[in-house]
Amino acid sequence: MTEISPAWRATLLTLYPEMFPGPLGLSLSGDALARGTWSLEARAIREHGLGRHRAVDDTPAGGGAGMVLRCDVLAAAIDAAAAPDDPRPRLLMSPRGRPLSQARVRALSRGPGVVIVCGRFEGVDERVIAGRGLEEVSIGDYVLSGGEIAALTLLDACVRLLPGVMGKEASGQDESFEGGRLEYPHYTRPREWEGRTIPEVLTGGNHGAIAKWRAAESLRLTRERRPDLLAPSEGRSSPPDRTT
Amino acid sequence: MTEISPAWRATLLTLYPEMFPGPLGLSLSGDALARGTWSLEARAIREHGLGRHRAVDDTPAGGGAGMVLRCDVLAAAIDAAAAPDDPRPRLLMSPRGRPLSQARVRALSRGPGVVIVCGRFEGVDERVIAGRGLEEVSIGDYVLSGGEIAALTLLDACVRLLPGVMGKEASGQDESFEGGRLEYPHYTRPREWEGRTIPEVLTGGNHGAIAKWRAAESLRLTRERRPDLLAPSEGRSSPPDRTT
Repeated sequence: MTEISPAWRATLLTLYPEMFPGPLGLSLSGDALARGTWSLEARAIREHGLGRHRAVDDTPAGGGAGMVLRCDVLAAAIDAAAAPDDPRPRLLMSPRGRPLSQARVRALSRGPGVVIVCGRFEGVDERVIAGRGLEEVSIGDYVLSGGEIAALTLLDACVRLLPGVMGKEASGQDESFEGGRLEYPHYTRPREWEGRTIPEVLTGGNHGAIAKWRAAESLRLTRERRPDLLAPSEGRSSPPDRTT
Repeated sequence: MTEISPAWRATLLTLYPEMFPGPLGLSLSGDALARGTWSLEARAIREHGLGRHRAVDDTPAGGGAGMVLRCDVLAAAIDAAAAPDDPRPRLLMSPRGRPLSQARVRALSRGPGVVIVCGRFEGVDERVIAGRGLEEVSIGDYVLSGGEIAALTLLDACVRLLPGVMGKEASGQDESFEGGRLEYPHYTRPREWEGRTIPEVLTGGNHGAIAKWRAAESLRLTRERRPDLLAPSEGRSSPPDRTT
């Protein structure tokens, strides 16, 4: 590492601060947290709750099941966590948001960090989204019990790309979604297992042939499984290059 | 609840069993775990590692960065965790997998549970996928440092749909992706906040008008943000019903 950059800062607003750092306190992200490569602050929305019971939610206007996080409570929590000139993007984990992509992860990991609001219950009062400039981000087309695990997912994806976190810088370049393709298959010892062998090209030592095989496999897998990731010129209309 | 069903069982194979239940030990999923609505067993792949150092990985055949989880080690761990007649699907969390959907989550939550293999490093030896009938599942188009947080995501999505986990059964029906739409906006007290008011229709008490407004908002948001979720007949080609 030649660059010295200030730590990447994550601030979480949640009803469950004890969920953090959780799994991010272990393994590569935990080591990087201990080293100060990034920092994590989990702040309790409930500290800004109203009245004796620190109420944070109320019934939905118009009726329906569940409870909605109040805009005034959430705004107070956001204002206490991030000054107006804080350069970090303010994200709201939400299934209604823009789907998270590896390109967005990479862009976030190159920035100063993130402020993440974790919703719970039926959702948050819509007005706080515009009122505090929150950007809704979805980690996928399914519904979670809250934004906390979605935030852990986004953070894990970003933190592994911070300088020095992965063993080799190269590890982040040659994997799924980089270059718009799924990653090629991996093999390691033993050479034969239950009658299944490692493809010969991989053990032949011809680096050009290996690179060609991997690129072809990557394209084949993407065509078979995720043609939506390919540009039209690479897509299903042309006959696939079957290499296996 | 009128049905009595056996607990939904999750078995995880991981290099980091201490990451579980993690955030799933709290809130709704934690309460349901304590009540026995579901069970979680996190098993250490390393127990099946080779030699004095319990090695689980080796360098990739054909070269390249990172390490690959060995097929023999992983197969031994799977065989010890799930008998051949175990009816649960065997999932491998992987960015190369089929994208997780709410329909798949719902189907999994209605089944007996899941066996989940969490990869780490560069990936797992390809041969164990076919050799042990693993189904690759992706939670989104980004790369994580391992399958553990992806597994937490999938489990959270499933567990909240188990009978009795959410406060009201209804809560699971009227939300994003059910019906192929994003959820409509939510509001709660106060009626006015920083000059922003709750849409009048929601405070008028006309339940028919409220239902109509919500359906229209849900369609509007889906058209604006995720036209890919809509059938062609509902899509962008027709002029949007702007209701706000």
